[in-house]
Amino acid sequence: MARENGYGYYRIVRVSELSRQAGVPLSALKFYQREGLVPEGLRSSTNQVDYGTAHVARVRLIRALLDTGGLSVSATKSVLGVLDAADAPLAEAFHAAQQAMSTPRAKESVASAESRDRVRLLAESLGWNTTADNPGTGAAARALDGLHAIGFDAPPEYLRAYAAAAQAAAAADLHALTTLQETDRIAELMVVGTVLGDPLFAGLRRLAQEDATHHLFPVDQRRDQP
Amino acid sequence: MARENGYGYYRIVRVSELSRQAGVPLSALKFYQREGLVPEGLRSSTNQVDYGTAHVARVRLIRALLDTGGLSVSATKSVLGVLDAADAPLAEAFHAAQQAMSTPRAKESVASAESRDRVRLLAESLGWNTTADNPGTGAAARALDGLHAIGFDAPPEYLRAYAAAAQAAAAADLHALTTLQETDRIAELMVVGTVLGDPLFAGLRRLAQEDATHHLFPVDQRRDQP
Repeated sequence: MARENGYGYYRIVRVSELSRQAGVPLSALKFYQREGLVPEGLRSSTNQVDYGTAHVARVRLIRALLDTGGLSVSATKSVLGVLDAADAPLAEAFHAAQQAMSTPRAKESVASAESRDRVRLLAESLGWNTTADNPGTGAAARALDGLHAIGFDAPPEYLRAYAAAAQAAAAADLHALTTLQETDRIAELMVVGTVLGDPLFAGLRRLAQEDATHHLFPVDQRRDQP
Repeated sequence: MARENGYGYYRIVRVSELSRQAGVPLSALKFYQREGLVPEGLRSSTNQVDYGTAHVARVRLIRALLDTGGLSVSATKSVLGVLDAADAPLAEAFHAAQQAMSTPRAKESVASAESRDRVRLLAESLGWNTTADNPGTGAAARALDGLHAIGFDAPPEYLRAYAAAAQAAAAADLHALTTLQETDRIAELMVVGTVLGDPLFAGLRRLAQEDATHHLFPVDQRRDQP
């Protein structure tokens, strides 16, 4: 059975079935609903609300942003708002999503002017065309501040290696977008790919580091006693 | 004035001076102390405790791990424990730190067997020598699950681009370690660099993405109306 209700044409399911199909526990689903993240279902009778495949996709997306991406509920809400504003230019949607994805924690702590300048000069030296309010500058600068706090001032070749890695990943991200036809899906992958590219890279870097560590520091090499 | 007290040879300062020198508010410092993250100072009289430069460095490190790295208090405690166990082999210290850095949130959600297999095969195809319990496998696999949830199955070339980027960053991480002489500082940079390399990369990727987006999707290109 299928029905049109303004949120797409879909097969009708109960809330328990929505939970099962999206692979999300009922308790989590109810939490998403209380927080206003999931659009309302269709009230089919006094005590029954029905959901469709668009809801299943939305619930999966919410879970990916919250759990895997580690976004806050309010950041997730902003990102979904950007995706739902279907008439926004893609670059603008992307910009808004990037802003929403800066965690409040990261916003609180202000990076030093020195580190912000280093990041800005690095981006300029690579010819990157970026806006002054791109949250990436602050995030990278705070990381440099943290390294500085333990007495390690990241040398230029270290920064260049990271920038080249970031550029290669960004190129892969953007190339993936060009394989899609529908603009709504492009916007979705742009936003979700930005969020999930971080843990994807972090995970692969952990694996690559372990491999490199085995080569450089064989397990039998012990630290000097203090 | 300088004094030896088992936590290094250092200049004596009051708690207010520790707060100022480490650049951390007194309230945060007291929180670190309550949580047992900062070693005790030297009681110099009934109502005065003195701290030294080793405490300043430790407080800065704690702040970098908690605020910039986004680690939980308990993960930070584990990481500090690894650093303080000065007789552990470096590779072992690194392994323990990687485990500590897997957030509880990430541990809760289990990646699909399919995605774990994809990550494992990717690492194998690159000849990476890694252990089965490296938390990177789960982190990367969960990201793939999240992308799958929005209908995007990351193609092989996408994964290879990310893996190459991760390998380049890991090589830069390890090269930075070889520039250090003292094994204690190597262990510290190994752990802190692992934590802060993630936000450094994430920030630079945001910048590189914005640059790439300007090229690919000029601001005047609007999404189709639904």
